[in-house]
Amino acid sequence: MNKGLQLRTRKGDETVHPKICVPLMGKNREALQDEWKQLKEKTVDLLEWRVDYFENIRDVDLIVDIATEIQRETKRPLLFTKRSEEEGGQAVSLNENEVVQLYEAVIANDAVHGVDIELRQQEKNIHHLIEQARNQKIDVILSYHNFTETPSALLLEEKISEAVVLGADVAKIAVMPQSKMDVLTLLQVTEKMSHTMPIPLISMAMGRNGMISRLAGGLFGSALTFASGAQSSAPGQIPTADVEQVLRILKRNM
Amino acid sequence: MNKGLQLRTRKGDETVHPKICVPLMGKNREALQDEWKQLKEKTVDLLEWRVDYFENIRDVDLIVDIATEIQRETKRPLLFTKRSEEEGGQAVSLNENEVVQLYEAVIANDAVHGVDIELRQQEKNIHHLIEQARNQKIDVILSYHNFTETPSALLLEEKISEAVVLGADVAKIAVMPQSKMDVLTLLQVTEKMSHTMPIPLISMAMGRNGMISRLAGGLFGSALTFASGAQSSAPGQIPTADVEQVLRILKRNM
Repeated sequence: MNKGLQLRTRKGDETVHPKICVPLMGKNREALQDEWKQLKEKTVDLLEWRVDYFENIRDVDLIVDIATEIQRETKRPLLFTKRSEEEGGQAVSLNENEVVQLYEAVIANDAVHGVDIELRQQEKNIHHLIEQARNQKIDVILSYHNFTETPSALLLEEKISEAVVLGADVAKIAVMPQSKMDVLTLLQVTEKMSHTMPIPLISMAMGRNGMISRLAGGLFGSALTFASGAQSSAPGQIPTADVEQVLRILKRNM
Repeated sequence: MNKGLQLRTRKGDETVHPKICVPLMGKNREALQDEWKQLKEKTVDLLEWRVDYFENIRDVDLIVDIATEIQRETKRPLLFTKRSEEEGGQAVSLNENEVVQLYEAVIANDAVHGVDIELRQQEKNIHHLIEQARNQKIDVILSYHNFTETPSALLLEEKISEAVVLGADVAKIAVMPQSKMDVLTLLQVTEKMSHTMPIPLISMAMGRNGMISRLAGGLFGSALTFASGAQSSAPGQIPTADVEQVLRILKRNM
């Protein structure tokens, strides 16, 4: 398999047929195996290991070993993510330096295809990890999540620009809409920025109100949508089969 | 069956589960029968007879008779529409007075549940037909179509307000997006206006770019979506089965 997450940059105003990514949230090796084995036959393009759900998060060797197993057995690109509590992740006891060491280990061991780093991390850590990832041809997603509200279009555009300028391979923004209008704002930002960005953009509005962005975000330039497998990792995630069916109907009628 | 088109006004920011309306475009009685017979078993809430496609458009008695048959046999609300050439209809030889007489006849004979009148008609004719329709408890849609472009949000809001103030039972706007951003503008206007309007709103962006508005318009307050049966009457219409499947998935995940 090629290295990296294999997401495509949008060309002009074309419709993107977004990849489907399913989060894995098992708390140990057995639970994770149950999750990825269920997905083997399904239309799932990528997997994301949300390692903040893993109970032995200090066991770096074990984590590298499991990531390698998931990659090898599922034959799908694997995205590795330690989501912070501030951005919707589980509370874990690692400090930022320990998170960086964990990322360094999975990157150095070539155990994943991509890593998600939050823009809130210290800039020196972001630079360092991007350099490590680049050496291994592993993609870096620089991400911004807001579980409370949908900031202004201007702030969202700034977050995307920040990711681009810092050298991300992919930019990601996820927001919580407080109204249907907020969902349209998120889609407008996606439509505007993805036209000209040199890298792929992943965007979504979470929660029930934002559901349509998970189904139709590709029309406005989002390169990937998260769908739930055994569990959902964020509010508003839709089961994989439903996402796949809607994407098929959209494609057939284009 | 109750009179009228049985569309619902939105309450606040609720999600509307839009009705599905299929256009009938047969050029004679037999062609129309073929169309509506195919639809009998399908998930179709309303039918629209696009009478501008009918070859004997001067035969008022025949038209009343066929409308009565469609109503009786399909057991679904029937919307009667003579679309003007300027707004995407077929070229027919009737002048505006003759169109008014045709509408008067189907209304007086209680042959339909609703009629579509374009806002471009003379105001005295609009007032006259609304009065006739009200006496028979038949709904009047006042409509605006633009097959060239998507006007500003302000102009679209004015068209909707005009329909409300003239006494429509339902307002309808259909525009041609020249970009994906235009589609989002149409949805923003729909979201904004449908919150507080005293009557239901039907809105859509046509063409390939606008497809998502036909599937997800209900999330933003559109009360009805047109889907193609045997033929499609406007660019971007999607087959009934596809629309029904997406609406079902949206509903299941709300």
